[in-house]
Amino acid sequence: MVECLAGLHRRKTPKSWVGKRNRLGNWRKGGQQPFSFSAEPSMEEIRRLQGEFTAERDWNQFHQPRSLLLALVGEVGELAELFQWRADAAEGLPGWTEAERERLEHELSDVLIYLLELAEKCRVDLPRAALRKMALNRAKYPASRVRGSARKYTEYED
Amino acid sequence: MVECLAGLHRRKTPKSWVGKRNRLGNWRKGGQQPFSFSAEPSMEEIRRLQGEFTAERDWNQFHQPRSLLLALVGEVGELAELFQWRADAAEGLPGWTEAERERLEHELSDVLIYLLELAEKCRVDLPRAALRKMALNRAKYPASRVRGSARKYTEYED
Amino acid sequence: MVECLAGLHRRKTPKSWVGKRNRLGNWRKGGQQPFSFSAEPSMEEIRRLQGEFTAERDWNQFHQPRSLLLALVGEVGELAELFQWRADAAEGLPGWTEAERERLEHELSDVLIYLLELAEKCRVDLPRAALRKMALNRAKYPASRVRGSARKYTEYED
Amino acid sequence: MVECLAGLHRRKTPKSWVGKRNRLGNWRKGGQQPFSFSAEPSMEEIRRLQGEFTAERDWNQFHQPRSLLLALVGEVGELAELFQWRADAAEGLPGWTEAERERLEHELSDVLIYLLELAEKCRVDLPRAALRKMALNRAKYPASRVRGSARKYTEYED
Repeated sequence: MVECLAGLHRRKTPKSWVGKRNRLGNWRKGGQQPFSFSAEPSMEEIRRLQGEFTAERDWNQFHQPRSLLLALVGEVGELAELFQWRADAAEGLPGWTEAERERLEHELSDVLIYLLELAEKCRVDLPRAALRKMALNRAKYPASRVRGSARKYTEYED
Repeated sequence: MVECLAGLHRRKTPKSWVGKRNRLGNWRKGGQQPFSFSAEPSMEEIRRLQGEFTAERDWNQFHQPRSLLLALVGEVGELAELFQWRADAAEGLPGWTEAERERLEHELSDVLIYLLELAEKCRVDLPRAALRKMALNRAKYPASRVRGSARKYTEYED
Repeated sequence: MVECLAGLHRRKTPKSWVGKRNRLGNWRKGGQQPFSFSAEPSMEEIRRLQGEFTAERDWNQFHQPRSLLLALVGEVGELAELFQWRADAAEGLPGWTEAERERLEHELSDVLIYLLELAEKCRVDLPRAALRKMALNRAKYPASRVRGSARKYTEYED
Repeated sequence: MVECLAGLHRRKTPKSWVGKRNRLGNWRKGGQQPFSFSAEPSMEEIRRLQGEFTAERDWNQFHQPRSLLLALVGEVGELAELFQWRADAAEGLPGWTEAERERLEHELSDVLIYLLELAEKCRVDLPRAALRKMALNRAKYPASRVRGSARKYTEYED
């Protein structure tokens, strides 16, 4: 696994990802392209890799739940800094440079990594929990009642 | 899919999850039990389900990147409220009631769901991005240099 | 002091404030009305009142720095919820109802109160610290260099 | 005013502040020293100075409410980073270096400055609003009912 990751780092931008990013970067106005995440890695794989990373550095002593939560808050703050002066940020982020997109990928990743580690330390099976929460949301906001209106939207969603 | 989710909601706590939670709730001091996430759903499945949820309600008009980011901040705030007066929150959350754990599962899930939708709207392949970021972290914090010391930890990790 | 506050609560909306709010609510397009905060209370007065509030309830045992920080994060989250689906929120908040403005006042206040208590518990003289920080900002971003351009703005301000 | 601020910046640590900080740094275990904020500057003075700063740089075009809110989130994130790996942070921050305290002063100040500017742009008289909110809190959490118990505390405060 370590070699695998080192390899990822060396290559940095494998062919397939470059292609994908370029293709998606060409966001065509007026037509919404289908977008999907890669099937892998799973959340479990990220959890396991991050667990190895933390254990190898003897950092579990610092990774108590509230500490991970504050680290998550720190990363959300870095994410916010990327968007704070960009009132015009639209879907697909037209106008963002490649360097800005890369920093965005890093910050989104940091939030995800700490979120998964926080869930692990709290013994929450997050993939399953998310599935249950989405089911609750469907029941709470029936499409027939809340459809479309901004006013209803504001009132219903919390 | 809708039926599948409705089913999840009806049952709410299938046998297998209850068993898992109970087992893990009995956190034995001194011995660390192995914990892992379920292999499913994948981030892509959550993204797809949330996309359907949003489209069925005609809510994509509100889900611009900065709006999703603020919604994420709101959910992180709700997560923080669960921990704010619990200076003693330890791994596994001993002493938390079942109701408190359920609320925690909801808030962690909400953060994940908005994070994935934000990544989608930014056209970031988050599973792959997280893999690359973890590889960068390994290179940035070599285990041999940062191992163990709290002081080094504070200096190195950001 | 307690009576003073109780009095504030009873009256809730003294004449002078209502007048002010109404006047400012009539935000005239094209002309920017001068706006200023009331000279009182000072940050020190708020700190002292909140200190009495906490002591009377024997809550200082819970108000350690990290706990107050997480409480602050929680309040910032509630603030974010007020803005998350309002991509069009403009200066003066035209279109917001009186109830929405009141909730906003509450959330902004909660952030301020916890911020001041956090500073107190950290022994930071926040009024003076803010003055020093603004002086540093003036030196860091000379008006002659950063004036106007959005691009420069993004690069310079952090 | 500009000269005044420039002067602050040049001197950086006037005698009186150094003395105060040193005195308060000697946090004596077992005895709680009285601490208070300086009477000045007021929130209104900070608002006015920050308003001049923003106007001189022609940055009001970027300082819409949601942008300021995201900037606030960014600063709260930087604040969180100072505390994330310090599970032992106690009142008065014993063990923190002078450099760490200075960075803390900067981050607390940044949060305050953006909070005041956000309130201004929303036309909220924050000093008065905070006074009203504290009165509401007193009514909501009567000392006689919530005194002391952690359990009650968790239930009552939100």
